[in-house]
Formats: sequence, structure tokens, C-alpha cells
Amino acid sequence: MNKLLIVGSVAFDAIETPFGKTDKILGGAAPFIALSANQFDIDAAIVSVVGEDFPQEYLETFKENRVNIDGIEVVKGGKTFFWSGKYHNDMNTRDTLETQLNVLADFDPKVPEAYQDADIVMLGNLAPAVQESVIDQMNDPKLIVLDTMNFWMDNTLDDLKKVLKKVDVITINDEEARQLSGEYSLVKAAKKIYEMGPAYVVIKKGEHGALLFYKDEMFFAPALPLEDVFDPTGAGDTFAGGFSGYLTATGDISFENMKNAVIYGSNLASFSVEKFGTERMVHLDKEEVEERLKAFKSLTQFEIALT
Amino acid sequence: MNKLLIVGSVAFDAIETPFGKTDKILGGAAPFIALSANQFDIDAAIVSVVGEDFPQEYLETFKENRVNIDGIEVVKGGKTFFWSGKYHNDMNTRDTLETQLNVLADFDPKVPEAYQDADIVMLGNLAPAVQESVIDQMNDPKLIVLDTMNFWMDNTLDDLKKVLKKVDVITINDEEARQLSGEYSLVKAAKKIYEMGPAYVVIKKGEHGALLFYKDEMFFAPALPLEDVFDPTGAGDTFAGGFSGYLTATGDISFENMKNAVIYGSNLASFSVEKFGTERMVHLDKEEVEERLKAFKSLTQFEIALT
Repeated sequence: MNKLLIVGSVAFDAIETPFGKTDKILGGAAPFIALSANQFDIDAAIVSVVGEDFPQEYLETFKENRVNIDGIEVVKGGKTFFWSGKYHNDMNTRDTLETQLNVLADFDPKVPEAYQDADIVMLGNLAPAVQESVIDQMNDPKLIVLDTMNFWMDNTLDDLKKVLKKVDVITINDEEARQLSGEYSLVKAAKKIYEMGPAYVVIKKGEHGALLFYKDEMFFAPALPLEDVFDPTGAGDTFAGGFSGYLTATGDISFENMKNAVIYGSNLASFSVEKFGTERMVHLDKEEVEERLKAFKSLTQFEIALT
Repeated sequence: MNKLLIVGSVAFDAIETPFGKTDKILGGAAPFIALSANQFDIDAAIVSVVGEDFPQEYLETFKENRVNIDGIEVVKGGKTFFWSGKYHNDMNTRDTLETQLNVLADFDPKVPEAYQDADIVMLGNLAPAVQESVIDQMNDPKLIVLDTMNFWMDNTLDDLKKVLKKVDVITINDEEARQLSGEYSLVKAAKKIYEMGPAYVVIKKGEHGALLFYKDEMFFAPALPLEDVFDPTGAGDTFAGGFSGYLTATGDISFENMKNAVIYGSNLASFSVEKFGTERMVHLDKEEVEERLKAFKSLTQFEIALT
């Protein structure tokens, strides 16, 4: 079975949306990525750090979902990363109410030996120096995918530029692509970002879908229009998990297959937002994913008889 | 040849974008609709009104592009509708600098007898009462498409609701769909709008593409990501022209064929924004449109081998 190595935060999230609010629940980039990627038949492992307050029950959730957690360090006496946020009525914007880095502040990732030969590496949003440390521990992976955000562009741009030279795919949202490239047009932005290292640029546009750029080619995956978006937290990470998980399972990193990977990324993200946190992903099965693939096909596929 | 009856403003536009500015040029909904629709082999006619100041040269432009103008009334001593606007740097938002309704204020549309049996009616953005007057002059068209905007929702909502009962397709942007329906989710908005009359709802999202809703089905056409958007004026009308022109040419108003129609609408709109006003549409040829169709196919079509 092909291996996927995932690095990312493991957190407590407290979320408030117009539909309700949660106490501390399982959050962070790595759980969303892993639970999404593991919809495919792969051997996935998380490298992360949590505090002593992290419930055994959550660690069991990973195991039950076939996610290897040998790389999750539990810091004695430490507290787990905590984030709380409140979504506005349109669900497209949110305010961060509180961020406690806790044990994530001194995170020094250790890739378990059994996963140093992973086929694909998915670097969830983290300090670029931490992402780079993971790359340096790997033994020639086929593909390295990096997710990042504006915080690192604002605060550690040099580190980000350094790690970007070592990655094959970047996933980033539209505003971040504009910030990183200085270009408003996403077509031009992608071309500027190629020059920084990644051969493939995935621009996530939330409810407006995702664009994949490679050389002079483009592919677009819409987000599935939904009646209700319950909680958008983790949708981008779920997308990245579906993307990297599909590529890992198929072992095919061609541009043609990456098109399928962004469709699966959108597909899985459309489930993630249906419930709070990772709840929907934990109880998702393959049949539901394949069924929704039909919805994506009817949403996008057409047959034009040339006139 | 199948007939398309187009009603809409014919105007002078003065446009300023980050790339330059124009004096008074040919604008208004009807020219964009007609020059787009006429990329297909159809017999299209405009019903509109202009002032005595309207240049013969523009009327010749219509004729050279095989657009029948018997229904364009020239008001002696009257002045043509004038609009000027300035786009912001992101090209997604604009300020209206000036609007002079002029002869449009008293527009009483007269459908030429030869087009009262048109197959399809495309009602460009105008006062709903004017749109309804056109419908009442028609002899049982196969399909009536209506475009409108928030101005009429704010000022003549009752008239709008009255005409909506008589139309088959509405084209509207996302914010307008939300305003008209009171629903944020576009899926829910479309369902509310069905109840007002139209069996088909097309929601235009500008650079984020367009959604077609029919019963429980959805189809999505992306906008083609472009390096440069020179002037977005008329993109929505050009979309409506491509949509209604394709349906007229094929004579097929099934949902499956409407999918193709929204793709052609997006295709033609992607040309319109490349130059000021209607300039790009006047000099467009079928080969370019078919060539760009390939770009839409590679942007959206995928082959997933089920795992």
C-alpha cells in the first residue's frame, strides 16, 4: 500500500456558527487531511505534537480510521494547540477569537523511520521552517505538497520562499496567491509562483471551487453548491487530504490524474462542511464519496455537438 | 433559420478602467446580446429605442453583423441613453458616474410583425413593464429568457414579480438571486425563484462562472481564467446572448442542451472582456469561438477511473 506522510497541527477547536457552537473538539490541519486522505486505500501517518491534555479517545479515532500516529509526540505537562473562531452569517468570513499555540510553539517534527520512504508528503499549514525540517527527513518522495497561509507570508516570508524551492505542489487560497505573487489575475499569479519552486499551483477559492495550474494548462473543480454549509472549518485541509490521498492511492502524479485529485478534493470538502469539525469525515464511507462523484460529473460534464 | 427576438437598451457608454478610458462608444444590453447571439446561424432582431444623435455607423454595424434593426425606433430630437462608469483596480466593482435615461425613459417597444413569431425571446435588463409588453406582443414563443437586476427589485418589485410569471428562464447575478429570494444559499435561492415563475434559473457569478438550476439538477460553467480583463462591461449581456443564441440555433430547449448554452455563454463572455465595449464581439469569428471551446473542455472535463 502506498504511503502518505502528513504533517500538520493537531488541535482543540471551539467553533461558533449561525447554526450552533461547540466546546473543544478535535481540530487542526492534520486530522482533516488524514481523515480525508484515508477515504482511499493508503497507509497514512501523521507527524504532529499534542499536550498531555489530549484525549486518548481522539487518538483512538485515528487508529480506528487506519491513521498511523507513531509520529504524534505527546508532551508531558504540555497543553494542546487551541483555536476558537466565530463565523459570520455568510459563512465565508470568520473572526479568530483565541489562539493558544501551546506545545505547537516548540514543535520539532520527527518522521518515524517507517514513513521516511513515504511516496507522497503532505505538508499542512505550519511554520515553513517546520515544513522544511520534515522534507529534510524524507528519503526522496515522489511528490511534496505544501499548504500555507497569509500569516507566514506576513511573518516568515524568507523561510516560506526557502521551503517553496523544495516542493512540487502548493495549495493556497486566492487572496494568498495574490499576496504571494503580487498579481491580481490568478493566471498571472500562478506563473509567478511557478518561479518560486512549485511546478503545480492549486488555488482554492472556497465556495467558488479550486483551480489547478501546470505550465500553460489549467483545470477547474467547482465546489458542490450546497443547501446548507454547517461549518467550513477544515474544508481547505479536507480538500488537501482528498487531493494528496487520491494521488497516493493511484501512484500517478501526472497532470491528468491531478485533475481527478482536485475533483476528489472538492468532493471530500463538500462533506466536511456538513457537520461540525471532523464529525462528518469520521463517519464517511466510500459509497457516499462515489455517489457524490456522480453529482460532480453531472455538475460539470457536457457534450457539445459542434455546430 | 430560427428567429431570436432581443429587447434591451441601446446606449452610449463611456468607460474608464485601469487600462484606459473611452469616449462615448456603442453600449447597452441589446448590442452585446445581439453581437454574441449572432455568432450562431440565426435570424436575430433588436427591439429598442435611440435618439437622433445615434450614429448611422452603429446602425450599419448591426446590419453588417446580420442583426435586424427594424424594431429600433429612432426618436426625432431625442437623445440616446447614456451611461458612464469607472472600474476599480480589481475590475470586479465599479462606480456609475452618470446615467441619462433620455429616450429610454418613455420606451414603448414595438415588435416588428416579422418577429412576433420568433422562436426565442431574450428580454435584456429593462423595466419589467417594458419586458412584459414585449411578451404580450409575441405569438407563443418556445422560450422566454429574462435578464434583470437589483434596481428593479428595489424600485418595481411588483412589476418584476408579474413578468416573472410569464418567463421560462431568468438570468441574474448571485447577489441579486439572494436579494430576490431572501436566501443566502444559491441552491435554496434557485428553488424560491422557481416558485415565482421561471422553470430555469441561471445565476451569473462573474469571474466565478455561472450556475444553471432546473428542478433538482444543477450545472456549472466556469468563467475562463484570463491573464487580463480589459473591460467587463457587457459580459453578462454577452453571456445571455451566447446562451439564447445557441438555444435558438439548435432549436433544442432541453436541460441537456441548456448546459451547452451556458458553456457558450461563458465562452463568448470571455471574449467580450478582452477589449472595450463591443469591439471584440464585432470582430469575432466562429473559428475563434470553437477554438476557445477546447479551452473550456480541457478546463472542466475529467475522466475518473473508479478506484
